Amino acid sequence: MARTTGSHADITGPRVRQAALRLFAQKGYAAVSMRAIAAEVGVQAGALYNYTPDKQSLLFDLMRGHMTELLSEADFSGAGNPLDRLRRFVEFHIRFHADRPDEVFIAYMELRNLDPANFAEIEALRRRYEDGLEAILKDGARDGVFAVEDSKIMTLAIIAMLTGVNTWFRTGGRLSLDQVVGQYWDMVRRAVGAQVER
Amino acid sequence: MARTTGSHADITGPRVRQAALRLFAQKGYAAVSMRAIAAEVGVQAGALYNYTPDKQSLLFDLMRGHMTELLSEADFSGAGNPLDRLRRFVEFHIRFHADRPDEVFIAYMELRNLDPANFAEIEALRRRYEDGLEAILKDGARDGVFAVEDSKIMTLAIIAMLTGVNTWFRTGGRLSLDQVVGQYWDMVRRAVGAQVER
Repeated sequence: MARTTGSHADITGPRVRQAALRLFAQKGYAAVSMRAIAAEVGVQAGALYNYTPDKQSLLFDLMRGHMTELLSEADFSGAGNPLDRLRRFVEFHIRFHADRPDEVFIAYMELRNLDPANFAEIEALRRRYEDGLEAILKDGARDGVFAVEDSKIMTLAIIAMLTGVNTWFRTGGRLSLDQVVGQYWDMVRRAVGAQVER
Repeated sequence: MARTTGSHADITGPRVRQAALRLFAQKGYAAVSMRAIAAEVGVQAGALYNYTPDKQSLLFDLMRGHMTELLSEADFSGAGNPLDRLRRFVEFHIRFHADRPDEVFIAYMELRNLDPANFAEIEALRRRYEDGLEAILKDGARDGVFAVEDSKIMTLAIIAMLTGVNTWFRTGGRLSLDQVVGQYWDMVRRAVGAQVER
């Protein structure tokens, strides 16, 4: 079969990734076959190999795409004081993840199904994101505005708390995302020992 | 095949559950066959049906067992002041979950694979656990010792933060579990607006 090139591939590639994302999130990576992904896209199974060498590459591409997008949109420039930077981080993290429930679910759940080299690369990207938050906490501790005993633990605790929003938040529910962001910001700034304005 | 009864069943039943737990955690529920579970236990596939009617029942039993154990060991008696009760909750939650990484992973990840009636039962148990923590927060707010804007949101945020320990804590790592408990307790009591002793 000839390799599909040009506009056809440009359109089908994203459709393949979207179908894989949806199926992996619904059924789990191990339970999804390349044939099932092809059926979801509406192409023959053989045609799928024009777009991806195998299922592992699809999973890795999805997870790497998610992490690189996260890193490119996060503001770790260091502009502003630590309290402002932390507030921006909290809001960004909640909004970015709330928009991408399937990607977040896969990013956490399918780590066990990555090949070792792929796992190492995803872990390195995740570490860079954690380091971005940790730098904010360290700067706040240095300036005496945050009470940080162990910046690494605090980083992981804040990220776990914020990502947890994805397990229950639904658009149109009791609280708007703005309200959720506001309440988590109150909890986070208290957790890091920053003063809460009254 | 005759139904196995008495001590043989008493021994094999837990082994079946242990094997299912291990395999579900490693590969995911959808990717594990009853045949694979039987092989892990070291019995014929047919023999497995002496202990469980099907794979869904195994998953449900594991998740229900985890939640009922959690509820029976948690201290929601209401004894003590809200700050002491919250401190006990934080320590209990971290220690209980750190001891059971596979159960926790499955409890969160395989909800999507429960039949609707089973899902409703597990959700009700989870809700009871959340209600236990929420009662502590409400009592603390009533007594004026916690600053609680929305007790439900705060409950979910605390549980997500604490359960997150499971994603990185390893026995023998940089920090002992005692140190982890101490640091999370500092963050939680600040997050709820309680005074931190210096």
